[in-house]
Amino acid sequence: MTAERRQRRLIAVGSGKGGVGKSTLTANLAIALARLGHKVGLVDADIYGPSQPVILGNQGKKPIARDEKLVPVESEFGIPVLSMGHLVEPGRALAWRGPMAGNALTQLIDAHWGDVDTLLVDLPPGTGDVQLTMLQRFKPMGAVLVSTPQDLALIDAARAGQLFDQAEVPVIGLVENMAGYVCPHCGELSDPFGRGGVETAAERLELPFLGRIPLDLAIREGSDRGQPPACGTGALAAPFHDIAAKVDAWIGAQS
Amino acid sequence: MTAERRQRRLIAVGSGKGGVGKSTLTANLAIALARLGHKVGLVDADIYGPSQPVILGNQGKKPIARDEKLVPVESEFGIPVLSMGHLVEPGRALAWRGPMAGNALTQLIDAHWGDVDTLLVDLPPGTGDVQLTMLQRFKPMGAVLVSTPQDLALIDAARAGQLFDQAEVPVIGLVENMAGYVCPHCGELSDPFGRGGVETAAERLELPFLGRIPLDLAIREGSDRGQPPACGTGALAAPFHDIAAKVDAWIGAQS
Repeated sequence: MTAERRQRRLIAVGSGKGGVGKSTLTANLAIALARLGHKVGLVDADIYGPSQPVILGNQGKKPIARDEKLVPVESEFGIPVLSMGHLVEPGRALAWRGPMAGNALTQLIDAHWGDVDTLLVDLPPGTGDVQLTMLQRFKPMGAVLVSTPQDLALIDAARAGQLFDQAEVPVIGLVENMAGYVCPHCGELSDPFGRGGVETAAERLELPFLGRIPLDLAIREGSDRGQPPACGTGALAAPFHDIAAKVDAWIGAQS
Repeated sequence: MTAERRQRRLIAVGSGKGGVGKSTLTANLAIALARLGHKVGLVDADIYGPSQPVILGNQGKKPIARDEKLVPVESEFGIPVLSMGHLVEPGRALAWRGPMAGNALTQLIDAHWGDVDTLLVDLPPGTGDVQLTMLQRFKPMGAVLVSTPQDLALIDAARAGQLFDQAEVPVIGLVENMAGYVCPHCGELSDPFGRGGVETAAERLELPFLGRIPLDLAIREGSDRGQPPACGTGALAAPFHDIAAKVDAWIGAQS
């Protein structure tokens, strides 16, 4: 292991269940942590369903290889990123069995990350090869778990948490996503996926609750358009910066 | 291959991306197809994140084994089901590499399905071991793809479609989920995940569009509570029965 790698910390962002906003959280958390002074890189470990090139608006760019290792792709937000989405044709399915997916993760993490000190890893759903390869080869310093308030998502988040526990990776905390939708007609709040379930789950599991991100059309549109809300300063950016501040404090407390 | 297996058709329900309502659609489609006279069974192939025991309200039941094969678990809706959720402790993570997940799928499909003539397979997200094992060992008659209207979900649905194409499994059609949310305060409709994107994608891919399921708190609550809306007869049940009628017509046209 080189000195470069010894100094670099990995933070995993996982969910258990897909479609709960893990990739959106990871991209925005990366931008918010960079604003706090970290040199942040992002590994999109969702080998079969990479979203980061779209979210960070750098699809179409290709990483080059140097000395048989990949060089991360820059994004306009100062976050270098590596994703299978940069390596395969858009819309092309990767019909890969697990060992290949595990090897792909290794290529993405064991790359020329240069002066990056904090590498966020956007995990795929499930508790399979990618998760196991990461835990066995690149043990993260900590993990952030994201869930919607729906029971079915919480069950899977608890499963993911258990996997980190078994591997003795501390869970930094839980994030509730898609909580609270403001009707564009009347401005009133309602909760299509429920509300508060993640905070209650965090209490039950004795884990910190890091914050709540609303279900907002603008966040979804920003993600589809390559404009993560954390770049801005408004109400949409605030929850991401609050969560980043808590993760930053946690990192500080470890050293 | 026994006569029993020759006569049984497999219909895969896939999405590419997780969290788009694939399991909810599968359970409700199973109930609706059963009402149309099919003998329907359900395989929950989401090995790492099984949801069917919760959705069909039979968690806690255990399948027995006979002659080294599993006997499916009954649900109150007349749909026998096999899921890893029936075989592992609730909340327990299956830290399995791909080949084990593929073997698990084989155990679930190659079971005592008795007089079931139509086996719906609720696929996990991605295009990995479970999908490949299914396509290689138990080629489905056709596949239903579900997506939300969000670009990021559509990209993954197209990836899943490509995998079925490569395997020469016909795509029966696309379903749009989480389209249209009625504000509980003012009753007006809005679209947190956009609207119409799946129908447009179906046109572009020259695939049938099977229908649209609204984002409705009652569907989410029914899924968390083990009461699938297709059991009822109201407005919430209608889209599932319409989709089932189209799938039924497609099945009829194959023979």
